[in-house]
Amino acid sequence: MTGRSDEFARISRYLAPLTEGFPGAFGLTDDAAIIGPMSDRDIVATTDTMVAGVHFMSDERPDLIAAKLLRVNLSDLAAMGAAPLAYLLNIALPASIDDDWLGAFVRGLAADQAAFGITLAGGDSVTTPGPPTFTVTALGTVKCGWAIRRSGARPDDIVYVSGTIGDAAVGLECLQREVAGLTPETRDELIGRYRLPRPRVGLGGRLVGLASAAIDISDGLAADLTHILDASGVGAELNAAALPLSEALKAVLAREPDILTTVLAGGDDYELLFTVAPGYAARIVKIATDLSLPLTPIGRIVTEPKLRIVAPDGAELKLARKGWVHGRKDSE
Amino acid sequence: MTGRSDEFARISRYLAPLTEGFPGAFGLTDDAAIIGPMSDRDIVATTDTMVAGVHFMSDERPDLIAAKLLRVNLSDLAAMGAAPLAYLLNIALPASIDDDWLGAFVRGLAADQAAFGITLAGGDSVTTPGPPTFTVTALGTVKCGWAIRRSGARPDDIVYVSGTIGDAAVGLECLQREVAGLTPETRDELIGRYRLPRPRVGLGGRLVGLASAAIDISDGLAADLTHILDASGVGAELNAAALPLSEALKAVLAREPDILTTVLAGGDDYELLFTVAPGYAARIVKIATDLSLPLTPIGRIVTEPKLRIVAPDGAELKLARKGWVHGRKDSE
Repeated sequence: MTGRSDEFARISRYLAPLTEGFPGAFGLTDDAAIIGPMSDRDIVATTDTMVAGVHFMSDERPDLIAAKLLRVNLSDLAAMGAAPLAYLLNIALPASIDDDWLGAFVRGLAADQAAFGITLAGGDSVTTPGPPTFTVTALGTVKCGWAIRRSGARPDDIVYVSGTIGDAAVGLECLQREVAGLTPETRDELIGRYRLPRPRVGLGGRLVGLASAAIDISDGLAADLTHILDASGVGAELNAAALPLSEALKAVLAREPDILTTVLAGGDDYELLFTVAPGYAARIVKIATDLSLPLTPIGRIVTEPKLRIVAPDGAELKLARKGWVHGRKDSE
Repeated sequence: MTGRSDEFARISRYLAPLTEGFPGAFGLTDDAAIIGPMSDRDIVATTDTMVAGVHFMSDERPDLIAAKLLRVNLSDLAAMGAAPLAYLLNIALPASIDDDWLGAFVRGLAADQAAFGITLAGGDSVTTPGPPTFTVTALGTVKCGWAIRRSGARPDDIVYVSGTIGDAAVGLECLQREVAGLTPETRDELIGRYRLPRPRVGLGGRLVGLASAAIDISDGLAADLTHILDASGVGAELNAAALPLSEALKAVLAREPDILTTVLAGGDDYELLFTVAPGYAARIVKIATDLSLPLTPIGRIVTEPKLRIVAPDGAELKLARKGWVHGRKDSE
């Protein structure tokens, strides 16, 4: 227990050091931060709010909350092909949160600032009678006019997904019920994927000028693919047998075939889902090699504006729900 | 009672229309917003969080909450000399908030977007078990390298303040106790100043290249002047008799001389406090005339790093507290 500093002291002791290396933050001592100028870069801006008990467990480790908060925003930047630049942080904390907690939260931010090349530029700190509530607004940059949109998918484009999917959603189920087929280690691995996303920042940058559309998977593969299809005015055929699964998830699927629904509809993967013209397949292979990151073709874009999912047995798969309603702009 | 739409419907129905005229918002249908490029402009970024029961009364009108939220951010942009560009909005609402409430909140935003020339560019909407909590991150632009800092005040500069001060703080007192000397109309006028700030956006722009330092008064005149002095490494002599007071406040002061402490230490004025080299006095008069806004010299910058306040009777005035600890970066 270290007690609770007043807001001025909290800002100067805990938050101001996070602005080191970003002169335009003025050490959080001015009215606003200054960013720029960047004559040949667009600024990309995204924001997410996370509430204790809604978006993370109330007793979650503060450094993991901090990292998740930053990473869900970094994932949005990655989906636009933007390089991280700076972020603003708003914390609303109940009086019960002490300086130890805040110190751990800040260490989580500092570690991810170093890992992902982003710096605190400004923020606000207030007291709330409610649950801890955090907002990050992340700013990135992308070559002027080259941000990857959701709306550029064209018929015959290949649909790719990075990494493995379903791990986070099944990890969340592991916290709620007994899931068959897992060792303690693989169970922890899946839960870790739920608790701490790995935003594909490096991949996002490499996809600029290559992907016709991209989104990060937060609401679930099927729901987020539908967002691309709706924005692009096209449809897709998705091959469920091609979905890249971790060894842990393959073990679960062998015991619980219905878990496939969770893989398709579950959220929180924070992998990138993107479409690429078929002629670029070799370039995608090269990027996957360079980044040591699986980039798996899982379907193709079609003209008819409908998502058709072909199950491993060849039948068409119908999803009762296309994705969780939580997580981001569309979040619950 | 119109019930409660789901988050997707809320975004498309209530929030997306606020992005009209800002193509880079993509109608809130993409992962992030795109801003720029502006080759000869710096981006200025500021953010404020407001919590029901802390920063506004829980039963406050939703359109006034929305306007206050936007305006406290616009006031920060004004203090840097920045022109409003776009903002991101995060709303965390309990399930009890219905669509009628949200509709009124959005109308408040729309009115101020039109009044101040700023547009919604992105955001997030989540549910909270706690009180309604709002964050705005406002982006503005200023000629590259010309943002007005807090740190540029120099000895012999004149200290100016815009408008009248103390109205909001005394307005807040009116909500809490019987304040002498007021008619019902003047009482309502003071309360109105507390409930709805008037950010000095036009003035901020005119001060670029002219003011050596500026801040908006949110923590209180004495506290915010101290912020300028600390950042600039100087002191000031403030003439309390010169403080610009509204007729309503003059009437209160005649009956309650001690209210002067509230005028100096109370917050929420959202007037601009700025310093100007003495040779520029005529230009300040011209701006005041152009904007029909009083700009009053209230003191001068001195070398000794100390704030000295001379009371109307010529004695030095000591303040027990320099300002409320609430309102912004430093907020409670």
